Amino acid sequence: MANWMIREKGYQESDAATLGNRYLIGNGYIGIRGTLEEYEADHLPAINLAGIYDRVGEGWREPINLPNGCFTYLKVDEDIYRLPEREPVSHEMTLDHRHGVFGRETVWHTPRGNITLKTERFASMHEKNLIGMRFRISADFHADVELLTGIDCDVWDLNGPHLEDILMEESGDIAGGELIVSTHTHEAGIPIVVTECIHSDASVEIKSKRKEMKLLHRICLITKPGESAVIEKWVAVYTGKESYEPRKEATDLLKRAYSDGFETQLKLHMECWEKLWKHSEVVIKGDEIAEQAVNYSLYHLHSIAPRHTQSLSIPARGLSGQTYKGAVFWDTEMFMLDFFIMTDPATARTLMKYRIDTLEGAIAKAASYGYEGAFYAWESQEGGYDACSDYNVTDVFTGRPMRTFFRDKQVHITAAVAYGILRYVEWTGDKTILDKDGVRTIIECARFYHSLLLKPVEKYRYEIRDVIGPDEYHERVNNNGYTNRMAKYTLEAAVRVIGEANVEGTLPEGFDADEWKKNFAVAAERLYIPTPSNRPGKEGVIEQFDGYFDLEDTTLDEVRGRLLHEKEYWGGAYGVASHTQIIKQADVVTWLNLFDREYDIQTLRANWDYYEPRTEHGSSLSAGMYAMLACKIGEPDKAYPFFLKSAMADLKGGGKEWAGLVYIGGTHPAAAGAAYMTAIEGFAGVSVVDGELKVRPSLPRSITGMEFNCYCRGVEYKVSIDGGNAEITPVGS
Amino acid sequence: MANWMIREKGYQESDAATLGNRYLIGNGYIGIRGTLEEYEADHLPAINLAGIYDRVGEGWREPINLPNGCFTYLKVDEDIYRLPEREPVSHEMTLDHRHGVFGRETVWHTPRGNITLKTERFASMHEKNLIGMRFRISADFHADVELLTGIDCDVWDLNGPHLEDILMEESGDIAGGELIVSTHTHEAGIPIVVTECIHSDASVEIKSKRKEMKLLHRICLITKPGESAVIEKWVAVYTGKESYEPRKEATDLLKRAYSDGFETQLKLHMECWEKLWKHSEVVIKGDEIAEQAVNYSLYHLHSIAPRHTQSLSIPARGLSGQTYKGAVFWDTEMFMLDFFIMTDPATARTLMKYRIDTLEGAIAKAASYGYEGAFYAWESQEGGYDACSDYNVTDVFTGRPMRTFFRDKQVHITAAVAYGILRYVEWTGDKTILDKDGVRTIIECARFYHSLLLKPVEKYRYEIRDVIGPDEYHERVNNNGYTNRMAKYTLEAAVRVIGEANVEGTLPEGFDADEWKKNFAVAAERLYIPTPSNRPGKEGVIEQFDGYFDLEDTTLDEVRGRLLHEKEYWGGAYGVASHTQIIKQADVVTWLNLFDREYDIQTLRANWDYYEPRTEHGSSLSAGMYAMLACKIGEPDKAYPFFLKSAMADLKGGGKEWAGLVYIGGTHPAAAGAAYMTAIEGFAGVSVVDGELKVRPSLPRSITGMEFNCYCRGVEYKVSIDGGNAEITPVGS
Repeated sequence: MANWMIREKGYQESDAATLGNRYLIGNGYIGIRGTLEEYEADHLPAINLAGIYDRVGEGWREPINLPNGCFTYLKVDEDIYRLPEREPVSHEMTLDHRHGVFGRETVWHTPRGNITLKTERFASMHEKNLIGMRFRISADFHADVELLTGIDCDVWDLNGPHLEDILMEESGDIAGGELIVSTHTHEAGIPIVVTECIHSDASVEIKSKRKEMKLLHRICLITKPGESAVIEKWVAVYTGKESYEPRKEATDLLKRAYSDGFETQLKLHMECWEKLWKHSEVVIKGDEIAEQAVNYSLYHLHSIAPRHTQSLSIPARGLSGQTYKGAVFWDTEMFMLDFFIMTDPATARTLMKYRIDTLEGAIAKAASYGYEGAFYAWESQEGGYDACSDYNVTDVFTGRPMRTFFRDKQVHITAAVAYGILRYVEWTGDKTILDKDGVRTIIECARFYHSLLLKPVEKYRYEIRDVIGPDEYHERVNNNGYTNRMAKYTLEAAVRVIGEANVEGTLPEGFDADEWKKNFAVAAERLYIPTPSNRPGKEGVIEQFDGYFDLEDTTLDEVRGRLLHEKEYWGGAYGVASHTQIIKQADVVTWLNLFDREYDIQTLRANWDYYEPRTEHGSSLSAGMYAMLACKIGEPDKAYPFFLKSAMADLKGGGKEWAGLVYIGGTHPAAAGAAYMTAIEGFAGVSVVDGELKVRPSLPRSITGMEFNCYCRGVEYKVSIDGGNAEITPVGS
Repeated sequence: MANWMIREKGYQESDAATLGNRYLIGNGYIGIRGTLEEYEADHLPAINLAGIYDRVGEGWREPINLPNGCFTYLKVDEDIYRLPEREPVSHEMTLDHRHGVFGRETVWHTPRGNITLKTERFASMHEKNLIGMRFRISADFHADVELLTGIDCDVWDLNGPHLEDILMEESGDIAGGELIVSTHTHEAGIPIVVTECIHSDASVEIKSKRKEMKLLHRICLITKPGESAVIEKWVAVYTGKESYEPRKEATDLLKRAYSDGFETQLKLHMECWEKLWKHSEVVIKGDEIAEQAVNYSLYHLHSIAPRHTQSLSIPARGLSGQTYKGAVFWDTEMFMLDFFIMTDPATARTLMKYRIDTLEGAIAKAASYGYEGAFYAWESQEGGYDACSDYNVTDVFTGRPMRTFFRDKQVHITAAVAYGILRYVEWTGDKTILDKDGVRTIIECARFYHSLLLKPVEKYRYEIRDVIGPDEYHERVNNNGYTNRMAKYTLEAAVRVIGEANVEGTLPEGFDADEWKKNFAVAAERLYIPTPSNRPGKEGVIEQFDGYFDLEDTTLDEVRGRLLHEKEYWGGAYGVASHTQIIKQADVVTWLNLFDREYDIQTLRANWDYYEPRTEHGSSLSAGMYAMLACKIGEPDKAYPFFLKSAMADLKGGGKEWAGLVYIGGTHPAAAGAAYMTAIEGFAGVSVVDGELKVRPSLPRSITGMEFNCYCRGVEYKVSIDGGNAEITPVGS
């Protein structure tokens, strides 16, 4: 039986940040960190809102955290019972990751007996603006209990405060009263409304209370031994971006939920989840750990998928907070997209529409550097604005910001966009995305690379110089193989798209299709792609960039041993890795994984074997690429530990969570996506060839079979694998 | 009356290093630091040998310091009298910089009265292998004196020891005996012989003595009040590089000098100097300080000029020690060459022959980076070997070596070579240097730049990217104007030289003259040269490299104020200057100074005015370029302080002498050359136009007139300037 529940027994205050990620719930519109209800800003609770960004002063622009409508704590006989202040007798957290329901149960000892607080919460998959909560309070004595619950407007922010003119009101439309917080963002003045109401069948008295930045309901009751008092709570959230009357819509929603009741809404919510799993659950036979880890990963992807809109993408840290500025990276296209293409093509379209709709930002960025076409944001926010700064790392020795080149030299981002759009088209067959805007996006991506190209006067080839590849530890390199190959892909893609668009009539006005088709084709043909080496000891290995093989060839341990400070940056101009062959993450291996059909197995293997021991895997994106390529060279058992590392990225934790005093942790949806890709494309061997779904399984020892559904060209298939045999059946046929 | 003597009264031990440079004597074959005779290795004495390099282990390859044949100290009544141990009653050092004679006079108080030691020494301009010394000892009492003098084999080295198998012998061929030290270099095993003998007409007893690494003569005498005892000493030096019998030649020379006597040899030496001054003295009327400073600068250039050979250049720190690895930089061509061209064309030819003869080294360096042609060494040693390391700076915060790009990206060095050779030809008219080897050198320089050229696929121009210009604080920049203009110069020069060589028959075998003439001409025409800006506030200013104007525009004081450590490097990836418009030294200004005729005065002025306040002048090469360009915009008074700074570089000192515990000081022959250029080409306005000498004086307020000689096309001219009037007369006509 598949395990759909994770559980944390006991309480450790220091785990608060990690558990906040691991127990995250969300519905793509909001993400609610898995923190306890009584936590205030210093314990990093957050109800993170998708797609609305704000900037204050010189701080980073980042997504906003809402006033915390889940805030709740308990008083018993006038004493406060909350964590971490009051040590519990027992404490447990649970997450039903099939249905996105967070639970906690804490027992405290009081002078007169034990009292138990159980809570449940969900971010409704049915009503994106709705959060439901349920409390059960029980004691083994007649306790005089006060449950304080409401909206905490003292919001945890990395670079805030983002919310201004916070207005706290109460209204009496619903029994017990509604709490209403109205505010707006600092920069764009977007209205934000958070409302709350309470419902209980128990004998309770409900009052309201304001305490500094908290607007609370005081729910007073007396417990009876052997009975639980049940209290339901609703939080509704609306912004001015989706509604002209956010306050009205929020209170209307509250009323609806109030009258439906918790059970009804929870059922609607769970049905939505079941529908998602119907298309996306991955059954893995023989390996429960792998099965749970993969489905837990998919849970996270579902929780942050922007299903409420037609055009939005997923930040690199999902909806787990403001870390990484809530920005969208290449992670979406290269690591998350496949999951949605195969299980939820509409959401995949939404992700790609975001890129098409932010084309102007990318064109503006390219122009600002003197390039043509579309240079997509390394860290994309609203409108394609690049949130990436020129100084992304702080020198631990001097405290000075270090000039980094992620924003201006990591040019492979643009190819990821073109790749994503066309991969969407290839799998779904949905060519409507290649309308005028879609076609223009592909053309502008190619235009960008075309404008980057340099021809050495003495060589008959084009080059791309002074870039950063996926391995960010080596800056400003020439002819990074991954970048060049992806640029070539983009140029060739544009040639095809122009050809088809010429027929469809979706070319940009005034665009000279013949000329640019020719230009792009010539460029693609001449662009230098490094080839497998003949050097002794490096036969078949492709040099990551010009001169990489001449760098010091040493070991990870040796390089780690050179650190003078545990938090010093490995890359940059003088980092411990910079002048060695130690790399941060899969680079050539990423390339070969995408274009494996262009090389023989020996070459793929030579590169895997060469680069893996030289890879720090300092990014959560790394393991998945090694796992997938291992599958492609017929080594699923070699892939397995990398696969599991990817799949367990959030389940196990252990990533970097703090940079000095700044929180940089969060969930790892790209690793989750990579785990899915390894399972489906690696182990199961799913691919699309000439529009047809193919399955060629190559299972690791621990896995005996797999079952999952997969969309291809508008048809959903059920794939059943039993050992080396695979069966593909159209669903519903 | 011109002042030809500098003088240092009193004694300060801490001045030893600085005075070692300021009081340097030399004859181009050896340089003898102006340190006191009694100094041992810890006070940095050195008899530095030109053109022989040695490397031990992982240390830098550097020129060798000879066993110190000048080592001498005094004993009176069995007590040692030497500095700094014994405080003197009075002490004075002098340098006759017309004749290269170093003097010192020290009076010590002894329990029985005062004793005075006077010494003189010269490195013979007449016999390059000979050093003459004379001691005068006097006391106001009957002192029992012992003068210990000989050869100290405990040599001061930065990265030694370079001398091995040191054999100390005595021989009796000359009265008093000869001391003979034979040794050889570590790496190449070049034999080195240093011999010494004594002559005195006074009543002395001469014995020999060995004390650890010192082979000494003990000269015992008793002083008579009112009389001086005079002792003459000769040191002869030979190496296996110039002689198969260095030991025999050294002892033969000793005998000759011994029999000639000090006065005769000193006279021959001084006559040589007078001959040099006959062609090179610069009379400056109305400004004694300027006059002495310029001629003192020329003294240094004369002292290190390689007149004893046909092919050698001058290290950036002359013969003042092992600093800067004794390596030859662009300093020679861009700063020192003009002086020799105008006053001593044979030496100028020797300097340029060194570059032609080290062409193979430059070709090998280019090939090692995947380029064609000749990439000259940034720090050139024997055979054109590049002594420059990839890690030239130590990070003061981490103690780690920092990757620097002087060696691989400062590509303008090659143009300096072509420029030097052709400037030599232009001024001297001596086309014999453009024989097969000379022509090939120019072609290979052009080939190098041709192989660097990049054509952006979307632009109709060629570019040079990823370089360092003269301003080393900004690394890896694109289209540094100075570099591009010098490359264009080189390409155009090659076109001309190929044309002429085709007539003379001096082209390399198998060289396709027509094709390459065309290639170089096309490249020169297409190579992008940044043009004066139209930006508001920057009208007429040429951007130093792509994007320079976008860097933070701040002040020197502000940048200096950001230093966290007084010795931290301003450049590199994260230095305080790197991301600002603060530059190390003249860059655009150097370019405009060389090609001033291509721009109007307004443009030259706009650039001078823009860049000067943004220049740290962190290199001694900087001030001279600002001085010269100021003259060209008709501002000799603005030029004057920069001129004087250049001319006083060694007279005044004050440059950086220590990097942590490593001595990096030495003389500044490039600044000396720049002072000469400012005086002659700036103030006097000397130039050659269509092969004819032109003078257009523009004197600063303090200077009323000038007189000097100048060679042009094989004819020596006397130039007399009186205010704004100039007269040119061929000498001897």
